[in-house]
Amino acid sequence: MATTPWFSTSDSCWLRPQHVLPLLGHGPQVLGDGRLQTTIREELAAAAAEVAPGPGTTKPGEHALLLATHEDLALTHPGMAAAVEPALVGLGPEGYVTTTHAGTDLLTAADARGLLHGFYALLRDGLAVFDGSTRREEPTCPVRMVNQWDNLSADAPMGSVERGYSGDSIFYADGAVVQDRRRVKDYARLLASVGINALSLNNVNVHGPETRLMTDHVQDVADLARTFADHGIATYLSINYAAPIEIGGLGTADPLDPQVRQWWVQASEALFAQVPDLGGYLVKADSENRPGPFTYGRTHADGANMLAEALRPHGGTVFWRCFVYDCRQDWRDRRTDRARAAYDHFMPLDGEFADNVVLQVKNGPMDFQVREPVSPLLGGLERTNVVMELQIAQEYTGQQKHACYLAPQWKQVLDFDTRSADPRAPSGAAVRDVVAGRTFARPVAGVAAVSNIGDDVYWTGHPWAQANLYAYGRLAWDPASDPDDLLHRWSRLTYPDLPDVQRAVVDILAGSWLTYERYTSPLGVGWMVEPGHHYGPSIEGYEYSAWGTYHFADRDGVGVDRTVATGTGYTGQYREPWASVYESVDRCPDELLLFFHHVPYGHELASGRTVIQHIYDTHFQGVEEVQAMVARWEQVADQVDGALAERVSGRLAEQLRSAREWRDQVNTYFRRASGVDDARGRTIY
Amino acid sequence: MATTPWFSTSDSCWLRPQHVLPLLGHGPQVLGDGRLQTTIREELAAAAAEVAPGPGTTKPGEHALLLATHEDLALTHPGMAAAVEPALVGLGPEGYVTTTHAGTDLLTAADARGLLHGFYALLRDGLAVFDGSTRREEPTCPVRMVNQWDNLSADAPMGSVERGYSGDSIFYADGAVVQDRRRVKDYARLLASVGINALSLNNVNVHGPETRLMTDHVQDVADLARTFADHGIATYLSINYAAPIEIGGLGTADPLDPQVRQWWVQASEALFAQVPDLGGYLVKADSENRPGPFTYGRTHADGANMLAEALRPHGGTVFWRCFVYDCRQDWRDRRTDRARAAYDHFMPLDGEFADNVVLQVKNGPMDFQVREPVSPLLGGLERTNVVMELQIAQEYTGQQKHACYLAPQWKQVLDFDTRSADPRAPSGAAVRDVVAGRTFARPVAGVAAVSNIGDDVYWTGHPWAQANLYAYGRLAWDPASDPDDLLHRWSRLTYPDLPDVQRAVVDILAGSWLTYERYTSPLGVGWMVEPGHHYGPSIEGYEYSAWGTYHFADRDGVGVDRTVATGTGYTGQYREPWASVYESVDRCPDELLLFFHHVPYGHELASGRTVIQHIYDTHFQGVEEVQAMVARWEQVADQVDGALAERVSGRLAEQLRSAREWRDQVNTYFRRASGVDDARGRTIY
Repeated sequence: MATTPWFSTSDSCWLRPQHVLPLLGHGPQVLGDGRLQTTIREELAAAAAEVAPGPGTTKPGEHALLLATHEDLALTHPGMAAAVEPALVGLGPEGYVTTTHAGTDLLTAADARGLLHGFYALLRDGLAVFDGSTRREEPTCPVRMVNQWDNLSADAPMGSVERGYSGDSIFYADGAVVQDRRRVKDYARLLASVGINALSLNNVNVHGPETRLMTDHVQDVADLARTFADHGIATYLSINYAAPIEIGGLGTADPLDPQVRQWWVQASEALFAQVPDLGGYLVKADSENRPGPFTYGRTHADGANMLAEALRPHGGTVFWRCFVYDCRQDWRDRRTDRARAAYDHFMPLDGEFADNVVLQVKNGPMDFQVREPVSPLLGGLERTNVVMELQIAQEYTGQQKHACYLAPQWKQVLDFDTRSADPRAPSGAAVRDVVAGRTFARPVAGVAAVSNIGDDVYWTGHPWAQANLYAYGRLAWDPASDPDDLLHRWSRLTYPDLPDVQRAVVDILAGSWLTYERYTSPLGVGWMVEPGHHYGPSIEGYEYSAWGTYHFADRDGVGVDRTVATGTGYTGQYREPWASVYESVDRCPDELLLFFHHVPYGHELASGRTVIQHIYDTHFQGVEEVQAMVARWEQVADQVDGALAERVSGRLAEQLRSAREWRDQVNTYFRRASGVDDARGRTIY
Repeated sequence: MATTPWFSTSDSCWLRPQHVLPLLGHGPQVLGDGRLQTTIREELAAAAAEVAPGPGTTKPGEHALLLATHEDLALTHPGMAAAVEPALVGLGPEGYVTTTHAGTDLLTAADARGLLHGFYALLRDGLAVFDGSTRREEPTCPVRMVNQWDNLSADAPMGSVERGYSGDSIFYADGAVVQDRRRVKDYARLLASVGINALSLNNVNVHGPETRLMTDHVQDVADLARTFADHGIATYLSINYAAPIEIGGLGTADPLDPQVRQWWVQASEALFAQVPDLGGYLVKADSENRPGPFTYGRTHADGANMLAEALRPHGGTVFWRCFVYDCRQDWRDRRTDRARAAYDHFMPLDGEFADNVVLQVKNGPMDFQVREPVSPLLGGLERTNVVMELQIAQEYTGQQKHACYLAPQWKQVLDFDTRSADPRAPSGAAVRDVVAGRTFARPVAGVAAVSNIGDDVYWTGHPWAQANLYAYGRLAWDPASDPDDLLHRWSRLTYPDLPDVQRAVVDILAGSWLTYERYTSPLGVGWMVEPGHHYGPSIEGYEYSAWGTYHFADRDGVGVDRTVATGTGYTGQYREPWASVYESVDRCPDELLLFFHHVPYGHELASGRTVIQHIYDTHFQGVEEVQAMVARWEQVADQVDGALAERVSGRLAEQLRSAREWRDQVNTYFRRASGVDDARGRTIY
């Protein structure tokens, strides 16, 4: 029956066609002929072709099922429309309402975007929502973005996908946009199905070929953007700040130069004329050797506002990354602290950015380490649009060879209250409030995250890394979500009809982030990875580098003194009470101690253990936990298809090997440095 | 006048055309029409075109100058031939005689090869040799080989030239032998001019494309070999041990398999039929992931002898490298010692190799570190042909960015007496005796060295790295040469008419190897380099690697215990007295202490300093010496042409930067580890 498979060439992840069965069983009717309604109809038809071999399957259930915007509903079902209207009052364009009216289960929304979100909610959660009550649902974060770090060809400086661990780009190959767009469409469906509403199409490091996406490849970009717009997703381009020079033929990219400003106005006009579904630009400027306004003695507000001015006529937005630091630091210079950089650069500009500029701030002050404090800039900015940047790609967390479910990390960040350490006295300035736009009522707020997908058949290298993409979308939709609950939901959707597997995968993944932390980098110190590719341990790999990433371990102790009193003063960037909490070696949470303080190996943690014994204990424990993960998987591996079992088992074996390597290198390094034996006499080489 | 320049596209190094002027002034006559005599005539003509604008320059001097083999001489000058005959008795085919007979200065030899060597000696040393006496000169080492590590294309795993620091290969580009062979011929002239008599044409790591040099590219190989043979140099091919599988279509490369043996016989027959100037094969087997006889449970004698059998009908020789060790070692394994590997593998096979097999043994047991002990295999083997392998390419000694004159290092190795520590009681088994074939009267002996040249206009990246190529050739000819004397001679030849520059360059280079040692790796410990590319410091870069390269530094001490009593037992591979000398922490020479012993930082050296203070002192001193080098060069830099001055000054600036980085990283690392302050209170970061 099915001529087009449900997913063109890949695993369908959590979007299994059987999840459409309950809807099909009710003979769903979709009103309206907008592009998103068409998408819903296509999804239904494709699923029906895949999972409904006999006509009986599509027999209508007890209730009819109707999906319509309120406007379309009013045309054909005015009574129903009038009845549901109160529930729609004040609901945003991405919200939706479920209700039951006179024997009809109704999904409705003010805008087709809400309808699409509601449709995918029915796929995820089934029809139990139609229990007689009326429910409103809408996203918490206005911006829920994914950033592709894809390059136009595999011979780009960092390969097909920078920090990509899942094969090559699904968008580009050999210097051009791929012609077979089926995989792109499947990706749009996956993103839409978890509520993503924005996507940047190319790597933030925009090299020569990618600079020309806005010119030479503009028709292909338009086509990609149309596919994503059909799924409720706005498309952004990462642009090269030096484009006026590189493709404009100008002698400068000075943001205050009238010719440069005019060039961006005209380039944006031409671009929007041909790519009507464009959302705007994403910019990495003055960062890791990329060009930017500093070259011309201008501020980042000057730079961003110039682009904002060019985008304003088209309703476009500038996402401007705050990942600006000195990547040519001298390790001998103990006063410069990379952790300070984003705040030092951007805090003085608070209030100077146009209202269609959004600062994109990494969750932590460094770069996606397994454990970092929350960036003080997130709590600092009061008069500037902000999105927080996360990394779904597991650059520093096992590169999708290791199972590491990251939602608990993200949740900790979202729950961090930038102005209160007392969970019973929330200040309304938790990160989840900031990214919701609630704190200081920012017009634009939200989250962005670096994608973890590629042309791998499982999308994400490790099949379980799909959970991170899923959970990111759902946390972006509702930062109050519980990571464990999301994990259960993802597992149930991904392994339907395999309850043993569902439970095993949840058991394995639930604590996997903490397990990863245990066998790698202790107490927030970070960066003990192989330079360059960032996989595997190298305790001193970044210790004498130019990247501002040091742990200062010596025979007496370890950690970075970032206090105001005796260190780099970084703790002073936090609002109270955190400035005081982090400043104090006694009040600083154990898990961040070495991020904020340099302490002797014998220093006693809040846990009662010494630092050195904590290092030994956690590293032994981490490996034991990976061994348990392997054993747990072996109990159910034979229940899944052979290719999946082999992929997962192979990755788990590598995780165990790597975890042991981490354990032994870290323990040996600190044993050699401290001279302290393990209190439990375990083997340290 | 000159239509063909003296050197086609490059610097002519020490072979300046003006060195031919004294000969031209005597109207030299070359007898005979052999290929080498033709080469001599071409050199004279080319130089004449370059440096002799007027006819007066070629006016005959007081004496006529005659160059002829004894055979040719006898045909036309029977009296002179009879007179000189006694001087030729017992002289080898590469030897030559200079004498004066009845107003004619005569260079003669039994073979044209000797004549060519004598010709270049006259260029190097002038005509003062014709002082009325009769002199015999012949090379000490029968084999004086250069190994190219060149690949067929720049996208080979290690680039155009593996460990090449001087641009791309002059032999190959884009998967083929280059068509413009002018540069190749110039290289042949340079090598011949210092006495080299053998060259291997391609990288010892023979990948797919290079495996086909013996088939697809055989006519080009023949052409290259002809060019070198015209300069007295035999050409060797590095072969792929798995060639019977990869290009022969067999299922095995087992050396005892009759089909495999037959394949090599036939392949060699075909090859020698088309490349009559071939000398034989160079083989890297069972080394760093290359194939070899171990795959089939055979010994290296089995492998080498199979090839020897195939080469014997053609008079060919197999050079078989002894660089065989476990490159997948577990750093946790303290019993395995890479330093032991060559001896452990090859010593038990002494006497089992065919007489046209030569074992090629690196000078030290590890891999061309700035300081290593002499390989015990060189003193061990008694019934096997041996050549010692050196590295002219500065892989671990500054990569031709740093000025580092290596002849003093090589000289130390050559002077090492494998059976005596008393210079007044030489045993006749010094390395210079071994490579001369004097010890145990080996039929083949000599030296081989990895080339340092590429298509750079100065050949060697750093123009002063030319001195290493020159000195290698001259030391190979006569290991008794004094490195300082060779340096003076090279400098005078390279910078004729610039005596200030000559002196400055000698001042800078004479001690540059020891300077390099001072600011890099202390007391023989080695390996504190960036993994992979091996440039710049990384104190722990190889400490947890699979390469068998560790220093075991901890808070208490540093070094590798290789004693029999408590360590890996490596010292036991030496003959007495060295086994006892190295075994004893008190008798072991300071400069090798950490190679043989793990000692506390407070250990007192023979010099009276502690280990830790030695580390600090030498690192400060090394940088000061580089500063002095820079200052010395600045005194004369304006006397050379601008391009040369710029190249040298740029490299010196990088050397100074790098030396400071070495100093600071090493000092900081050991300060952190030891907790000991510098006794002189200098800055340690």
